[in-house]
Amino acid sequence: MNDPIYETVITTVAPEGRVHVAPMGVRYVGEQVVLMPFKPSTTLANVLATRHAVLNLVTDTRVFAGCVTGRRNWPTVAAECIVGQRLVCALGHVELELAGHVDDAQRPVLRLARVHAATHAPFIGLNRAQAAVVEGAVLVSRLHMLPMDKIESEMKYLQIAIDKTAAAPEHEAWAWLCEAVQAHRAKATTP
Amino acid sequence: MNDPIYETVITTVAPEGRVHVAPMGVRYVGEQVVLMPFKPSTTLANVLATRHAVLNLVTDTRVFAGCVTGRRNWPTVAAECIVGQRLVCALGHVELELAGHVDDAQRPVLRLARVHAATHAPFIGLNRAQAAVVEGAVLVSRLHMLPMDKIESEMKYLQIAIDKTAAAPEHEAWAWLCEAVQAHRAKATTP
Repeated sequence: MNDPIYETVITTVAPEGRVHVAPMGVRYVGEQVVLMPFKPSTTLANVLATRHAVLNLVTDTRVFAGCVTGRRNWPTVAAECIVGQRLVCALGHVELELAGHVDDAQRPVLRLARVHAATHAPFIGLNRAQAAVVEGAVLVSRLHMLPMDKIESEMKYLQIAIDKTAAAPEHEAWAWLCEAVQAHRAKATTP
Repeated sequence: MNDPIYETVITTVAPEGRVHVAPMGVRYVGEQVVLMPFKPSTTLANVLATRHAVLNLVTDTRVFAGCVTGRRNWPTVAAECIVGQRLVCALGHVELELAGHVDDAQRPVLRLARVHAATHAPFIGLNRAQAAVVEGAVLVSRLHMLPMDKIESEMKYLQIAIDKTAAAPEHEAWAWLCEAVQAHRAKATTP
C-alpha cells in the first residue's frame, strides 16, 4: 500500500527573486511535508538554495491545468513568516522550512517543517469536474508516453464530469487541456 | 452549460428525532444553498417538516461510499444554532433554514439560507483517490442501469488512482464499492 498523496501547488522563490509555481503531489509524514520532485526541478533547486517553500492548498484547478499547458504565471502574495510567496487563489497555505534532504539520481526527498499555516477561504465541497481536470492534467503531462486511443477514451470519460458539474474555472481549465490534446493529435498525425 | 455541483453530505433530523445522513450534490446560488432531492426522499420530508438542514463539507469519502452500500450510521454532534446534527468528520458545516420550496413530481427545489457556518479542520489538498471513490459511489448507485462491461472498465480505471494515492479511509471506502460491484455481478450471472 503506497503512502497517500495530496495534489497541491508548491511555490518557491529563486535566490534572485523569481517565483516558481509547481503542482506537486505531496505526502504528510507526522508534522512534516515530504516532496519528491523529479530531477531536473526548479522547485528542488530553489528549496536547496533558500531552504524555504510554500505549500498551497488549491481547488482552482486552472493552476494544475495551466502549469502543464505553459501557463505558470499565477498571482502570488508575500508569505507571512518566511521569505516566500503564496498563491492568491489558495484556500489555505503552509509556510515550510527545509528539515532534511536525501539526494537521489531521479527523485530526491525533501522533508519540510511547518513554520506557519493560514486559511483564506472555506472548502465548499468535492467537485467531480475539479477531479476530472486534475486527471486530465496528469494525462496531458504524459501525452508523449501514451497511445492516442487511450488518451481519447480517457478524455471522453472525464468530459462527462465536466459537462455535469463544472464551474467557469473548470471549463476554462478543461479547454486548455483539450487544446493540448488536439495539438498533440495534430502533431502525431502530420506525415 | 449546467450549474456547478459540489458533492456534500446533508444531515437532517426527522420530527421524532431520527438523524438522516444523505450525500447530495448541491448548488450555490448567491448566498443560498439549493438542493434538488429525487422523490421519494427522507431529506425532503425532514426539511419540509423541520425547516432546517445541515450542509457538511466532507473529504472522508467513506460517507459517500458507505451511504450507497448500506452504511448510513455516521457519527454526528449537535448543530450550534439550529435543531440539527452535523457530521463529526466534516471539515466544515453550514447550518441552514428553508427559504423556499418549489414542488415537482420528480425533483422539487429547496432553497436554504445560511444561519451559521463553522470550520473544524483544514483542507489538506485534492486527492485523486477521494475523487475515484466519489465516481465509484456514483457508479454503484446506478449499477442496475449500466451494462456490466462499462461497470468493470470504469472500476478498473478508478482503481489506478486508489492504488497510487489512497489513504486508509479511501481504501476502506473502495473495498465497500468493490464488494457491491461483486455482489451485483454474482446476482447478474446467477441463472
